[in-house]
Amino acid sequence: MSTEKVVIIGSGPAGLTGAIYAARAALKPLVFEGFNAGGLIPGGQLMFTTEVENYPGFPEGLSGPKMMKAFRDQAERFGTRYLREDVTEVDFSRRPFVIKSDEHTVETHTVIIATGARANWLNLENEQRLAKSGGGVSACAVCDGAMPVYRNQELVVIGGGDSAIEEGSYLTKFAGKVHIVHRRDQLRASKAMQERFFKLVDEGKMEPIWNTVVTDVLGDASITGVRLKNVKTGEQRDFACKGLFLAIGHTPNTELFKDHLDTDEKGYIKLARPGRTYTSVEGVFAAGDVADHTYRQAVTAAGTGCMAALDAERWLAEKGIE
Amino acid sequence: MSTEKVVIIGSGPAGLTGAIYAARAALKPLVFEGFNAGGLIPGGQLMFTTEVENYPGFPEGLSGPKMMKAFRDQAERFGTRYLREDVTEVDFSRRPFVIKSDEHTVETHTVIIATGARANWLNLENEQRLAKSGGGVSACAVCDGAMPVYRNQELVVIGGGDSAIEEGSYLTKFAGKVHIVHRRDQLRASKAMQERFFKLVDEGKMEPIWNTVVTDVLGDASITGVRLKNVKTGEQRDFACKGLFLAIGHTPNTELFKDHLDTDEKGYIKLARPGRTYTSVEGVFAAGDVADHTYRQAVTAAGTGCMAALDAERWLAEKGIE
Repeated sequence: MSTEKVVIIGSGPAGLTGAIYAARAALKPLVFEGFNAGGLIPGGQLMFTTEVENYPGFPEGLSGPKMMKAFRDQAERFGTRYLREDVTEVDFSRRPFVIKSDEHTVETHTVIIATGARANWLNLENEQRLAKSGGGVSACAVCDGAMPVYRNQELVVIGGGDSAIEEGSYLTKFAGKVHIVHRRDQLRASKAMQERFFKLVDEGKMEPIWNTVVTDVLGDASITGVRLKNVKTGEQRDFACKGLFLAIGHTPNTELFKDHLDTDEKGYIKLARPGRTYTSVEGVFAAGDVADHTYRQAVTAAGTGCMAALDAERWLAEKGIE
Repeated sequence: MSTEKVVIIGSGPAGLTGAIYAARAALKPLVFEGFNAGGLIPGGQLMFTTEVENYPGFPEGLSGPKMMKAFRDQAERFGTRYLREDVTEVDFSRRPFVIKSDEHTVETHTVIIATGARANWLNLENEQRLAKSGGGVSACAVCDGAMPVYRNQELVVIGGGDSAIEEGSYLTKFAGKVHIVHRRDQLRASKAMQERFFKLVDEGKMEPIWNTVVTDVLGDASITGVRLKNVKTGEQRDFACKGLFLAIGHTPNTELFKDHLDTDEKGYIKLARPGRTYTSVEGVFAAGDVADHTYRQAVTAAGTGCMAALDAERWLAEKGIE
C-alpha cells in the first residue's frame, strides 16, 4: 500500500476545486466522491439544482450537474483520481492517516474534508420531487429567490429561526407576500431578526402563520400550494402559493469525523486559524459547507476548496513530504 | 442625488462576483470599474493573464479577458451598473458614505472594496511585454507553474523572502532546476523556509545566485534568459532560462482607504471578524486580494466577493435600509 499525499473526501465544488489545485501542484489527489451516504451523491447538493445563475463565469447560467461535470473533468485533466465510494471510517490518531471505504483502505499524509451539509427537509414525497425538478420548492432563497417565476407571487417559508427570517426577508424583494409557517406561536429568531420581521409584517410584505405545520406539498409540474395543519386545533386547510422555501436548518455531514476533530455545537467542523482551512488535527483541512454555516454558496465552497489544497500543499512542503 | 445601496470599487473576480450577488439581491449595485489608476485596468490582474487553467468550471481553460467579460456580463444581466472611472476620494466618516471620481460624486449606504493588489515587478520593458503576452514571465507560480512549457526547464525566481522559497519550491515539482536570484547573500525567509530551501539545494532541485539582480529579460516570442549583475563586483552575465517568476512581494491597492480604515503593516485591509468580510468601518466590506496576502487566486477572490455582497445585504436589512 503506497501512501497518498492528499485524500479528498467529497466531490461538490469544495472537494473538486481542492482536487484541481492539488492536482496542479502535482500531488495526484485521490477523491472519495461518495456514493450515496446520507442521500448524497457524487457532485454534492448541486446535483439537485436545475439552474445555477450565480456561479460566476456563466452569464447564461447552467445546470448543477453540468457544472459539476466541468469541475470533475478539470480536476481529472490534471491528474486527479476518483473512487466512487463512501468513506466508512477514518483514523486521524495515527500517521499517515487511514481512510476506509467498504472496498479500499488508504493511507494518506493529508486529508481535505469537503463532505458538505444537507438542508433539512420535511421529507414529503411531492416536496422532494418538486425540489429535484425545479418545480418551486427550494432550501436556498439566495440561490433561487431571484428567479422570475417567484416575482410578485405568494411564497411560503417554513421555519422560525434567524435563517427563516433572513431567507424570508430576502424573498420580500421579489415576492408578492412571504408567509412564514412556524410550528410555534412565536419566533426563535434573535431580537434583531424579530424587529426585521415585525417591520416587514407592518409593511405588508410578510405574514406569519403560527402554530402550523406543512403536511403536504401540492402541484404537478410545479407547486400550486401547501396543505397546512394547525397543531393546536388539528384543523387542515390548503394554502395557495407559487414557491416553498425550507428554512429549518442544515445538518453538516460530519458524523464520520466527530470523534476525531473539533466540531461546534451544530456539528460543523471548527477551523483552527482565522481565514485558513486548518482543523484541530494537523494535516486535516476542511472546505465548503462542512465548515460554513453562513454563506453556503457554490463559489464560496470552491474558494475554500482552493485554500485547503494550497494549505495542504504548503503543509506537506513544510514537513518535507515529497 | 439618490443614495446607492451598494457601491463596489474594483472589477476583478471579487468585485464582479460581489456585483452578481448584490444584483441578484435586487440592490442594483454600482461598480466603479476603474480606468487605469496604478496601472490597473477594468477586469483587474486577470486582464494580463493569457490562459486561466485553474478557475473551476472551465476544463479546457480560458483567457483572463474572456473570463472577466463573462463575470461582467453576468453581473450586468441582473442589474449591475458600471462606471469606467477611477475612484479618487472616499469619505467614510459621514453616512451615507461619499465616493468621488473625477466625473461623479456618489452617496452610498455600503461599500465593497475590491481593488486588489498588484504584484511588484522589476518594470523592465521586456519583462512587462513577455508577462502580458504569456511569454514565460509571471508573478504567480501557483497560477502558471504547471504549464507544460516549464517542464524540466531551468527557471529563475527573483526574491529572498518566504514567498520566493514557497513559489520556488512549488516550481521544483515541474522544473529541471529552480535558480533563486537574490540581491543579498542570505535569505530573508523564515527558519522553516530556510530549511526547506537548503533541503532542496541538497537535492539538486534549487540553487541560489547570491548578491545578484536581474537587469534585463532576454527573448523575443518567449523568454530565453536573463541578464544578471553581481551587486558586489558589478560583473554582468547572461543566464539561460525558460521561465522567470517574480516573488518580490505585492502591493495592495489601498492608498485611497488607508486613512479611513484599519490596514496591516503591509497595507492590506484588516478584516474585523474571522471568516467574514467586515472591515473596521461598519458598512464597509472588503473582498479579494486587497485583504488576502495568502491565497490570491481568482476563485478565492470570487468567493470573498460573494461573501461581501451577502454581508452587505444582511447589514442593510438589519439597519432597515430598503
